Amino acid sequence: MKRNAKVSTAVIRRLPRYYRHLSELQESGVVRISSSALGKSMGLTASQIRQDLFCFGGFGQQGYGYKVEMLKEEIGEILGISRGHTLVVLGTGNLGRAIIQNFRFSSNGFQLLAAFDINPAVVGTKIAGVSVYHADELEGFIAVHSVDVGLLTVPIAAAQWMGDRLANAGVKGIWNFTNCEITCPREDVVVESVHFSDSLLTLSYLISQREEPKEDNR
Amino acid sequence: MKRNAKVSTAVIRRLPRYYRHLSELQESGVVRISSSALGKSMGLTASQIRQDLFCFGGFGQQGYGYKVEMLKEEIGEILGISRGHTLVVLGTGNLGRAIIQNFRFSSNGFQLLAAFDINPAVVGTKIAGVSVYHADELEGFIAVHSVDVGLLTVPIAAAQWMGDRLANAGVKGIWNFTNCEITCPREDVVVESVHFSDSLLTLSYLISQREEPKEDNR
Repeated sequence: MKRNAKVSTAVIRRLPRYYRHLSELQESGVVRISSSALGKSMGLTASQIRQDLFCFGGFGQQGYGYKVEMLKEEIGEILGISRGHTLVVLGTGNLGRAIIQNFRFSSNGFQLLAAFDINPAVVGTKIAGVSVYHADELEGFIAVHSVDVGLLTVPIAAAQWMGDRLANAGVKGIWNFTNCEITCPREDVVVESVHFSDSLLTLSYLISQREEPKEDNR
Repeated sequence: MKRNAKVSTAVIRRLPRYYRHLSELQESGVVRISSSALGKSMGLTASQIRQDLFCFGGFGQQGYGYKVEMLKEEIGEILGISRGHTLVVLGTGNLGRAIIQNFRFSSNGFQLLAAFDINPAVVGTKIAGVSVYHADELEGFIAVHSVDVGLLTVPIAAAQWMGDRLANAGVKGIWNFTNCEITCPREDVVVESVHFSDSLLTLSYLISQREEPKEDNR
């Protein structure tokens, strides 16, 4: 498969959605799907689907549609799902605990290796089979194990400092749930943030628009 | 202020980021900022900033920059922050509890009214001052209180059903954390989902790209 060199952020952001939809289609027993049907289920136009997938070399055949399983696997490959990425969780408060217990890391190609905290009540215990170490052991752990990503769910006051420690210890990416912006000391470390507030404010905007449908000019 | 009628989803998605950055700038004491400096801090070009804000009538002055506080307030207004939106949480597992305890609803213009669950151990208790009612009481509660948004953190098996109940009870929006797609029985109800997996797969893509910088064609 041949990829076109420059892919826009918007297309990249849609790839996980494709992967998720195709997984659901596969689970429902769908073998083949047209770009228009795939578009409809994802709220995109058929032409947008064809353009997106063309960025990665195009997978469909005119008038024939896409093979769901093959397309899913190709997109999974692009997303790096088969690379065996590894991850540690920093912070085992309610959010960290919820993610450790419920998030399907393996379905997304990640292996959860360990969790870290400073709370003596949880250090030394296990959460859903995952060992919780003291945060002081972070660098030592990363030096021994190959850790690709550090997930941050620490309090805001500790966010930047723990992000720096992760980056300096050699992770490739930081998955940031702290609701504050992390600036990374190393350019080769990617920071991906989940900002709950951005999502709620988008919803706020959308319902506000519906509350005043005729007030476009004011 | 005059808004241009049709605003793209991409611009809308950036508005909460503007709001967040401007809030941080304001807290740091910045009074005025140029589009290029604002762009730099957000990873956007100055021209993209000017284009985005032009969609909402334009707020800057050539060679003069933007007044941080005014711009923040204008964007907050567009996002509906001053509308006093209300919200209930469905599901008080680890994730629901984490959000109730830590998420700053009021900073985003939302008032958290109540939580609902079916677990007898939590029904009747309070979490961070928020009363937890039995899920059977949901429709009765919404009939009496004005509830704009229902936040879903229920198990996947109950997600669609609870989404239907929220929509039929009259909420305007559903904030979906269940990691499964909700289809809404009513067209006037907006569903906004936070898919952790989409974010992790984006990160997976970005670190995979860095792992093989010279393998653009294969």
